[in-house]
Amino acid sequence: DELVAEAKAKKKKSTIKIGGRVHIDHWSFSNTDAGINRIESGRIGGAAGDPEQSPENITAFRRLRLEISGTVPQNMKYRLQVDFNNPQTPEIKDAYLGWTNLPNNQTLILGNQKRPLGLDHLNSSRYNVFAERPLAVEAFNEDARRFGLAMYGHNDEESFCWTYGIYNLENINTDGRFIGDSAQAGGYSRLWGSPWYDDTSGGRGYWHWGLAGAVAKPDGNAGAGDTNNNEGRFRTRPLARSSQRWLNTGRIDGADWYQNIGFENILNLGSLQITGEYILTPMQVEDPAAGVDDNLFFHGGYIYASYFLTGEHMPYNRSTGTLARVKPHENFFLVDRCNGCRGNGWGAWQLAFRYDHLDLTDGGVNGGVGNLYTAGLNWYWTPYSKVQNNLVWGEISESGLAANGNNPLDAPVNAGNFLIFGTRFMIDF
Amino acid sequence: DELVAEAKAKKKKSTIKIGGRVHIDHWSFSNTDAGINRIESGRIGGAAGDPEQSPENITAFRRLRLEISGTVPQNMKYRLQVDFNNPQTPEIKDAYLGWTNLPNNQTLILGNQKRPLGLDHLNSSRYNVFAERPLAVEAFNEDARRFGLAMYGHNDEESFCWTYGIYNLENINTDGRFIGDSAQAGGYSRLWGSPWYDDTSGGRGYWHWGLAGAVAKPDGNAGAGDTNNNEGRFRTRPLARSSQRWLNTGRIDGADWYQNIGFENILNLGSLQITGEYILTPMQVEDPAAGVDDNLFFHGGYIYASYFLTGEHMPYNRSTGTLARVKPHENFFLVDRCNGCRGNGWGAWQLAFRYDHLDLTDGGVNGGVGNLYTAGLNWYWTPYSKVQNNLVWGEISESGLAANGNNPLDAPVNAGNFLIFGTRFMIDF
Amino acid sequence: DELVAEAKAKKKKSTIKIGGRVHIDHWSFSNTDAGINRIESGRIGGAAGDPEQSPENITAFRRLRLEISGTVPQNMKYRLQVDFNNPQTPEIKDAYLGWTNLPNNQTLILGNQKRPLGLDHLNSSRYNVFAERPLAVEAFNEDARRFGLAMYGHNDEESFCWTYGIYNLENINTDGRFIGDSAQAGGYSRLWGSPWYDDTSGGRGYWHWGLAGAVAKPDGNAGAGDTNNNEGRFRTRPLARSSQRWLNTGRIDGADWYQNIGFENILNLGSLQITGEYILTPMQVEDPAAGVDDNLFFHGGYIYASYFLTGEHMPYNRSTGTLARVKPHENFFLVDRCNGCRGNGWGAWQLAFRYDHLDLTDGGVNGGVGNLYTAGLNWYWTPYSKVQNNLVWGEISESGLAANGNNPLDAPVNAGNFLIFGTRFMIDF
Repeated sequence: DELVAEAKAKKKKSTIKIGGRVHIDHWSFSNTDAGINRIESGRIGGAAGDPEQSPENITAFRRLRLEISGTVPQNMKYRLQVDFNNPQTPEIKDAYLGWTNLPNNQTLILGNQKRPLGLDHLNSSRYNVFAERPLAVEAFNEDARRFGLAMYGHNDEESFCWTYGIYNLENINTDGRFIGDSAQAGGYSRLWGSPWYDDTSGGRGYWHWGLAGAVAKPDGNAGAGDTNNNEGRFRTRPLARSSQRWLNTGRIDGADWYQNIGFENILNLGSLQITGEYILTPMQVEDPAAGVDDNLFFHGGYIYASYFLTGEHMPYNRSTGTLARVKPHENFFLVDRCNGCRGNGWGAWQLAFRYDHLDLTDGGVNGGVGNLYTAGLNWYWTPYSKVQNNLVWGEISESGLAANGNNPLDAPVNAGNFLIFGTRFMIDF
Repeated sequence: DELVAEAKAKKKKSTIKIGGRVHIDHWSFSNTDAGINRIESGRIGGAAGDPEQSPENITAFRRLRLEISGTVPQNMKYRLQVDFNNPQTPEIKDAYLGWTNLPNNQTLILGNQKRPLGLDHLNSSRYNVFAERPLAVEAFNEDARRFGLAMYGHNDEESFCWTYGIYNLENINTDGRFIGDSAQAGGYSRLWGSPWYDDTSGGRGYWHWGLAGAVAKPDGNAGAGDTNNNEGRFRTRPLARSSQRWLNTGRIDGADWYQNIGFENILNLGSLQITGEYILTPMQVEDPAAGVDDNLFFHGGYIYASYFLTGEHMPYNRSTGTLARVKPHENFFLVDRCNGCRGNGWGAWQLAFRYDHLDLTDGGVNGGVGNLYTAGLNWYWTPYSKVQNNLVWGEISESGLAANGNNPLDAPVNAGNFLIFGTRFMIDF
Repeated sequence: DELVAEAKAKKKKSTIKIGGRVHIDHWSFSNTDAGINRIESGRIGGAAGDPEQSPENITAFRRLRLEISGTVPQNMKYRLQVDFNNPQTPEIKDAYLGWTNLPNNQTLILGNQKRPLGLDHLNSSRYNVFAERPLAVEAFNEDARRFGLAMYGHNDEESFCWTYGIYNLENINTDGRFIGDSAQAGGYSRLWGSPWYDDTSGGRGYWHWGLAGAVAKPDGNAGAGDTNNNEGRFRTRPLARSSQRWLNTGRIDGADWYQNIGFENILNLGSLQITGEYILTPMQVEDPAAGVDDNLFFHGGYIYASYFLTGEHMPYNRSTGTLARVKPHENFFLVDRCNGCRGNGWGAWQLAFRYDHLDLTDGGVNGGVGNLYTAGLNWYWTPYSKVQNNLVWGEISESGLAANGNNPLDAPVNAGNFLIFGTRFMIDF
């Protein structure tokens, strides 16, 4: 009886959980061709860029995030994340309220949340194998979070799960509002499953598949007098924190509809993981600018292999269909012991290699074609902290010069090769 | 003895409480006359506005608030609230330190806090019956919070209570500072009581009266060279999140002194509540602009009735003289039960209707006259969450065109009618 | 066994601690000479300033800080502080991750942290005797915190301690990033000890000595095309919250290297404390502007005496070599007792006097010479709250007019005298 009373009392109280993360980056732009320099030093609106001015190195807080989340009795939840990496311009990340315990193991969430497109975007930045997200995932789901209403569910075994929702296309992370009579909405859905999940080994073996689809209607005719912009645009940085986005279609005039179809796959065998995704994005343009086709087609994907030298594995969360927190067999430590000896533990070490492809050049829009390679070495100190080292090299080709303009780009040029080295120190709590 | 020691130890520790709120808005401007369009599309400084350009719809975070508050042993308290609804420009709300347990049940507070004018402003945005505050309350106490020093007290029975304090007139929510040799101060006080409060029913019946008075001295001669602005101005939005404030006197040149006298009344009979306020605001102008009188008089008020279809009542906090948290008899839920049935609870439902009047047009200042009607339907899911639906319609008349200028307005025009629909989803924790 | 299991479980959990502070300032610029007025009203870039326009009074939040800190098992820590005193431009303060329990009682910290130069800067703003930090400490270590990697350690008795690290010279408190191919780094170190520390009286008597050294390489040739600025600059406000920094070398063209050598001393005898520091700063300039020498030398220091009228003492933290939290013998309170009497406690009262000297004028750079006096009266209400009253007067001489320009200053003028009164109310939690 007492226990019941206690449980009841508990049920009537809100819960609150505080957390955060600190991610610190250094990126060295070691070597870049003249075409890359032009893209990086050119500015939005179309300055030509200086082929001699190579990208500047950067040391920065990548994420300085505070978050607060919890539940409200009996069946609601909330979450609010603020990122202070650029303190003078804080950004909201997750900011929502939701209804839990709905029929069919479902939860309904209203507010700023990740659009369900791209496994690597749905993975937390705390758990991803590489420092920056793949070209295709970031290009077709830039910054992931949008304001929307979405349903999340799964079957009783968590072997088959789904998300579907409707989202506004504008990123409101810095201003918190969408003003405009044009809705710029998109319907997104994702289905996924883990038909093989080796419970007995604690999830050291599993196979994940995922399928995502979206239909979006940007406001391709947004004019200078409108408060909202044309969200018919795909762009991404070169897997590193450059100032400009080196692959960039610009805002495509007359963008009317576009669709995304995404395929996800993870195969995990103990310490080895092989993961790949591909996203197809056809776009229909109404009354396009001169030299641009009515129908455009952009696409891209990646494949990576990662391996723990120290025997750990990448955990997987079945109900969200995403990677989870790695737990080193032994944490890193280096201490003086009482007996005068020095004790140490070396944490977990992981090697990884990724190939990225993205094609944003089609039918007169010259966003560029990227073929990039990333070699990664991760050192996990604790389950909550690690350093990621990424060496990124590759080529961008078929890119227009004024890569950031709002208008269809100039005649394509080969933008050239580059080599970048990045390090990220991270802790979360 | 152990208990005593424990109690002592407790006394010596600071306490800290974390909370927050998420308010999500959608406002549709369904129908507006040309005059309204001119006001909304005209910009500060006096652009004429376009009669064809109707107000844009808006989806926005209305409040994304984090707060931290607590006590410091033995007799001090603090509170700090930051609102990230527009994340790139955070605002402070309450930000103060205070001395508690002073003689006569008094607390003294220094810092950013609400000025004691307008019951509806003193009510928390979490508990108010309507989404936006009444015209008169917001116009004469814009954004409520100012930097000041104020004393709060009550008699032992909490049947008679008071607040008095001195406040700077400038809103420092976004910059946290007042720079200027002119003080722009105002003395504010509020007395209130609840001579009838039905304790036996848990406060289902009560009568609240309140009386507020203020004397303020704006810097009506603030020039371009001064860091501070002239705070002799009254303005408010049309009970909805329009871009511009549709009722607006502008900064009145030469504003020398003004006074506020406010009357409050609540009568609560079970599920029914009838509430009204009226605020009178005479202003004395020294060396007014051409066509403006020496003595101006603005005034406004509202009356509303609200009723719970599901039998709950609006609670009342005697010592603060404000409305409190509604607790639904049954929370909203919709679940699958073990036996295969579906269970549900429907929360609390409340109907409300409000009439608002505000007259900001007098003696050559053409801030406008508003007569607005609001129909509200509130659905409370839990004590911490609800959705508010507000249909707002009415008329603004006798408004100058350049409603946001700093100077006396043009010849009055009838600004016309409008119809707005708004929805607010809210949770707090 | 149970205890062991419990201790182990504890070890595996992250900890999280929340805190903050509210500091409220008022500064009255009672009397200023014409030369001071010219400096305060002149703007960066070199406007001449108006000798008739005296500094404006200011009421402001000096600090509105939230912080979150804790540990991650087993050997890491983190800390994140955000200051909302100017809410529209939040600043990060401490923002780091670190490795603890390293050999030789050492901790390694990466991120935004205080540079180890100037005892008074290393003291928390919560514990300092005077409201604003000494001229020399602030001038040679402006805002203290920089992005860097530093090691903190001490011997087993904590009688001898050290910090050494490398830091970027740019203040990234508001933008969180350093972009630029020039590193602008400095190596800083500090050694300190407390050879006398009277443990038996709880630290009422102690002697602290400290020695700090730094070698820094600013980017004296940073041009308009570079993202980074030339950090070869020393400047500070007049121990009060003026708009401009009244002592200011500007960015010195061609600044190549500079060094800091700092001496610290505290002697505490019960309620009496005598503290002094001196900092020497030679600078080598390459290809200086016309009229500026190749070798410059700036220097300054302060000495203060403080005394508790009520018998308390200023505590000292040996391992950090800084002042700690004052605990009044009796807190301030004023209450009605049950028996009808009024009870009160009067907190702790402290008198203090400081003399400040700073010489930023040398070899054609006319940053100014300051001789300032501060009389302080502190009233501690609780260990967590107090009010500081500071009367500041003195003279600035040999100052160039355009004190904030980026170029060598005009011919020196005597800037004149001034009198300022400031009050700071503070609480922390």
